Amino acid sequence: LSHSTVSSLGEHALISRITARLAMPPWVLVGPGDDAAVIAPERGALDVLTTDAQVDGVHFDLRFVPPEAVGHRALAVNLSDLAAMGAAPRAALLSLLLPDAIDVEVIDRIMDGLLALAMRHRVTLIGGNITRTPGPLALDVTAIGSVRPRRVLTRGGARPGDEVYVTGMLGDAAVQLRELQAGRTLPVPHGESRYLFPEPRVRAGQLLGRNRAASSCMDLSDGLADAARQVAAASGVGMTIDAAALPISDNTREWHERAGLDAIDTALTGGDDYELLFTVRPAHRGRLRGALKEMGDLPITRIGVVTKQGDVLVRDERGTREVPEGYEHFRSSDRLRVAPGEVEGR
Amino acid sequence: LSHSTVSSLGEHALISRITARLAMPPWVLVGPGDDAAVIAPERGALDVLTTDAQVDGVHFDLRFVPPEAVGHRALAVNLSDLAAMGAAPRAALLSLLLPDAIDVEVIDRIMDGLLALAMRHRVTLIGGNITRTPGPLALDVTAIGSVRPRRVLTRGGARPGDEVYVTGMLGDAAVQLRELQAGRTLPVPHGESRYLFPEPRVRAGQLLGRNRAASSCMDLSDGLADAARQVAAASGVGMTIDAAALPISDNTREWHERAGLDAIDTALTGGDDYELLFTVRPAHRGRLRGALKEMGDLPITRIGVVTKQGDVLVRDERGTREVPEGYEHFRSSDRLRVAPGEVEGR
Repeated sequence: LSHSTVSSLGEHALISRITARLAMPPWVLVGPGDDAAVIAPERGALDVLTTDAQVDGVHFDLRFVPPEAVGHRALAVNLSDLAAMGAAPRAALLSLLLPDAIDVEVIDRIMDGLLALAMRHRVTLIGGNITRTPGPLALDVTAIGSVRPRRVLTRGGARPGDEVYVTGMLGDAAVQLRELQAGRTLPVPHGESRYLFPEPRVRAGQLLGRNRAASSCMDLSDGLADAARQVAAASGVGMTIDAAALPISDNTREWHERAGLDAIDTALTGGDDYELLFTVRPAHRGRLRGALKEMGDLPITRIGVVTKQGDVLVRDERGTREVPEGYEHFRSSDRLRVAPGEVEGR
Repeated sequence: LSHSTVSSLGEHALISRITARLAMPPWVLVGPGDDAAVIAPERGALDVLTTDAQVDGVHFDLRFVPPEAVGHRALAVNLSDLAAMGAAPRAALLSLLLPDAIDVEVIDRIMDGLLALAMRHRVTLIGGNITRTPGPLALDVTAIGSVRPRRVLTRGGARPGDEVYVTGMLGDAAVQLRELQAGRTLPVPHGESRYLFPEPRVRAGQLLGRNRAASSCMDLSDGLADAARQVAAASGVGMTIDAAALPISDNTREWHERAGLDAIDTALTGGDDYELLFTVRPAHRGRLRGALKEMGDLPITRIGVVTKQGDVLVRDERGTREVPEGYEHFRSSDRLRVAPGEVEGR
């Protein structure tokens, strides 16, 4: 069946092909195959829901992104949103918009990537739908998590004096995307690429919520600058970020040096870093240390401070300036339409 | 702003434009504007979740479907799935895949239609996302409802001897689609069109579940033949449908006579009738009567019987035959690519 197209296989066969791979835990009372899925909420927990779509040619490009990574990313971006709320992921629904000519093997590989990530986080695919589209392949995932009532992390809790942190390293995903676009081989195995297989910070988010270490939290899907602005706006505060503190990997620094580009700028505005930005009251540093102990080797870096005055600034040796405009999906820069000149300098 | 395009307005402005129209009830702890929505589940109730995408050129066509109907339908098809489970709808998430050149006014009108239906059913839009697409406009809605543990209606409960019922009339939506495709005016106001503004049978579904009148239930998104086959397969039974009993409106009968086509065939295979198919044990007719009393003027018609033997048959004056193949989204007939000859006979 490796060269069956969707049109030749048919919708029912395709659904069976996918649902045959799923197993349902006891809290799923009705899984795929009915009009809707039915799940028993955890006693005393809140439902947390999020949805995010990924479109070929906008969020990924099948010409250089392997199908497993497409499936992985479609779920990962949603788990990252749940992580940013401090929620434990439980279940997902998948809408697949498929062009007629897509190979069934490609869909199988997409599901491989999606289900491998789901399994690692004990997320059950409880339903979804498949439709044809005359446009590009698109995956829209809705993820459902749960969180105890007073453990929710929102964007709105930052207060002046809070310290600003990020998980992981910034800018790797943006650099890797540019390398893939240019047809070059990544310096890391695909499975370790932050762009192709971003690891949603599910455990970190839960730990930060569980012991109430963080006063606010957001994921960096559209870059650090965007997240900082959004948290500041939602909390009614400002933020000053220390450029020298931004965690940037050696690979990413060297790549920028070769290309004559500014790594700080990429760390601030590069999309696809599914890390967490969060704030911590100085009085709660002990709680943060408690959470850190259980996070394994995930780097956590203090990058700035929350200010009373509402601007979002970045400070370096030359002084202080506003953070650059974040990525907007309908405007100016388009992640997948980078001018080749940008990477030709290397 | 009536001629702003999505590209000129920008993503954040567009999200604000939509979220400014929403009000959150107290059980929504975190609504739009954060990484995910947080809702408090009803005590003792189960979560019911469903997702369905609608794509321009596949499920509707903006050339002859007004934007309000596009928004209405995107939510309606999901509420119809919740209704088929006996669930009370509570909340929805919306993924909008927008071509760059789409007018903001069109999006406003889509939201008008979606939110008007949401308001009538007290459904809160708790979140979603917007992305650009190089392909056609697509809306993917995830709807969340709740149901008491022993009130869930599934496709799997039909037993031999049960009676088979449908709500409403069959085939009107298919006829109206063909009329719209041919550029003709509908014989009913747009607001009353089953194709443009299908009314999900939310109250009927809940009533059938609440007093446990129905042994199984499914909605007719892909036509009666498809639903009958799916309920039969899920329940491990057969079904015999009485062609003469199918509820077909005078308009639809007359249209078929003029076109020299078979109205029974359309009633069986025409898609987009978001009615409910359900089965009732003969011993539970009293429960059904109880539910009917509260359904107002919604017609409920007995159309057949559940059989032990696994075929799904239709019986008319000429004898008994298998029901025709249902609609499959990736195969053969495509709702929006009907051969013009089919309607030219009138």
